[in-house]
Amino acid sequence: MRIASYLLPDGTRSYGLVREDRIVDSGSQLRAEFADLRALLSAGATKRLETADGGEMGQGEVRLLPPVTNPDKIICIGLNYMSHIQETGRDKPEYPSVFTRYPSTLVGHGQPIVRPKVSDHFDFEGELAVVIGKSGRWIPKEEAMNHVAGYTCLNDGSIRDYQRHTTQFWAGKNFDRSGATGPWLVTTDDIPDPTALSLETRLNGEVMQQTKLSDLAFSIPELIAYLSIVTELLPGDVIATGTPSGVGAFRNPKVFMKAGDRIEVEISCIGILANDVIDEN
Amino acid sequence: MRIASYLLPDGTRSYGLVREDRIVDSGSQLRAEFADLRALLSAGATKRLETADGGEMGQGEVRLLPPVTNPDKIICIGLNYMSHIQETGRDKPEYPSVFTRYPSTLVGHGQPIVRPKVSDHFDFEGELAVVIGKSGRWIPKEEAMNHVAGYTCLNDGSIRDYQRHTTQFWAGKNFDRSGATGPWLVTTDDIPDPTALSLETRLNGEVMQQTKLSDLAFSIPELIAYLSIVTELLPGDVIATGTPSGVGAFRNPKVFMKAGDRIEVEISCIGILANDVIDEN
Repeated sequence: MRIASYLLPDGTRSYGLVREDRIVDSGSQLRAEFADLRALLSAGATKRLETADGGEMGQGEVRLLPPVTNPDKIICIGLNYMSHIQETGRDKPEYPSVFTRYPSTLVGHGQPIVRPKVSDHFDFEGELAVVIGKSGRWIPKEEAMNHVAGYTCLNDGSIRDYQRHTTQFWAGKNFDRSGATGPWLVTTDDIPDPTALSLETRLNGEVMQQTKLSDLAFSIPELIAYLSIVTELLPGDVIATGTPSGVGAFRNPKVFMKAGDRIEVEISCIGILANDVIDEN
Repeated sequence: MRIASYLLPDGTRSYGLVREDRIVDSGSQLRAEFADLRALLSAGATKRLETADGGEMGQGEVRLLPPVTNPDKIICIGLNYMSHIQETGRDKPEYPSVFTRYPSTLVGHGQPIVRPKVSDHFDFEGELAVVIGKSGRWIPKEEAMNHVAGYTCLNDGSIRDYQRHTTQFWAGKNFDRSGATGPWLVTTDDIPDPTALSLETRLNGEVMQQTKLSDLAFSIPELIAYLSIVTELLPGDVIATGTPSGVGAFRNPKVFMKAGDRIEVEISCIGILANDVIDEN
C-alpha cells in the first residue's frame, strides 16, 4: 500500500491510498475513528484503508504533507554508509551516531524547503526513512522488522556551518522547513526487503548521491535494536537511516543549495521526493 | 505564581496553583477551555488561574507531573557553566552546545527515575529550566525575557557510557524516565531576575553541585536568541540551561546513582525536585 497524508482543497487534513496518479481519500471515512495516519498505525488498522469508501481525486488536487504529520520522534542516524564515513575522514564507528529533528523541520513532497537567511551552506542528504508500526522497547534484532510499518524518502537538509558550531549537530539539523519527507509511506507488504532498494539524490537533475541500501553500515534491524534500548519506539516514529557519499559539503568544489534549485530524492519502489528551494523571508 | 501539573487521586490530569503545602485545583474549572498547562500558556491565560474557583487539597493527595507534560520541544544546553567546562577539559565555546531530550525521558517531582539495566554510569545534572510563554523566531536578546513564562528545576539525568558511544549525546540523554523536572513552574512575576538564583544538587543529602545562575556562560537571553534563529520557540517549550561542575563522572572517585539513592535539585525561589532511583525491571 502507498499511504499519503495531505491537505484537501478546502484545507482539511486527511490521508488515503495512492493508486497510480489518483488518491482515494479513505480518510474521509476513517478520520472520525482515526484522526490521522499515526492514529491509524497505532491502532494497527492500516488494512481499513483498503475497504474504506472514499472519494477519488487526482494527486494534483491535494497538497502532500509528511506521511506522518505528527511523529512522537524523528530519530536521525549520522554516518551510516561507509562511502559517507570515508568522505568525512572518519573510521567505521562502533555505534550508530544519533540525533533528532523536530517535525517542524520537515515539509512534504512538492512544498518548498527554506534556506535560512543566516547561511549559504544549505546542503542535501538523501535518505531512506523507516516508519515504525508497532511500539517496542528492547526489540531484538531478529524481531525488529515486525515493528516496521513501511518506508519513505527523507531529505535531511543540513545547515553545515551551524552544524559545526559545536560537536552537537542540533543547530544544523533543526532549522524550520529545512528538510522534507515523502511523497508517501510504502508499507512493508510492497517492500519485503529494504536492502534491495536503491537511492539517488539529484540537484537540478544532476545525480549527486547514488547508493544501494545494502551498503548501510548499521542495518535497519541493528538500528531498531540499538535505539529501542534507549527509548520506546512508537507507531509513527520516523528513523532516518543516514545518507551516502556525495553531499555538497564534501564535494570539490562544494555545492550548496540556493533559491530556485530543485532537489530530488528517489528511492526504488517508493518514488520521488521533490522540493524547490526558496530563501527565508 | 507557582503552577503545578498533576494526577488527581482518580487519575485525571489537571493543573493548578500551589499555595504553601496546598494545591488549588483551578484546572477543574479551566480544563474544558484549556486542556493542560501548555494550552493555558499558549492562550496567554495563566492569570485565569488566580480567579478560577477550584477545590483545594494537600500536595500529598496529588501525584506531580512535569510542569509542562507535553512540550513540543525540550532543548538542552551542554557545557554552559565555566566550572563544568573546565572539569570536562574543554575551552569556553563560541556557541551553545545544544541537544534534545524527549518528554518520555522526564518524570515529575517525587516519581522514581530509572537506572537502565545496561549501565552503571547513571549520572545527575542539576539545571535551571526555562519555560517559554510566548512563541517567537528571531527573538532579539533584548526582547528574550518577554518570551519566558517562568522557571523550574530539571535533572538532566545522563547515562555516561551511552553518551560517549559517539560524538552525539542522544543515547546518553534519552533513556526513558532517566531524568526529572519540577516540582512546579514559578512564573516570572515571582522571579524577575533569574541570575540572582542559586542551585544545589544533593545526592543522599550530600552536596554535589552548587552554583549561582549568574555563572552561566551563555545567559538566558543569549540562549533564546540563538535557539530562535534555528527554530520557532513555542509556549511550553523547555530550555534546560546546562549544569555546573560537580557531576559524578568528573569526580575522583566517580560517583554514579544506584537504586535506593535520592537525588535532589534545589533552586532558590523555586523549590526542591527530589527523586528516588530505581533499577529498570
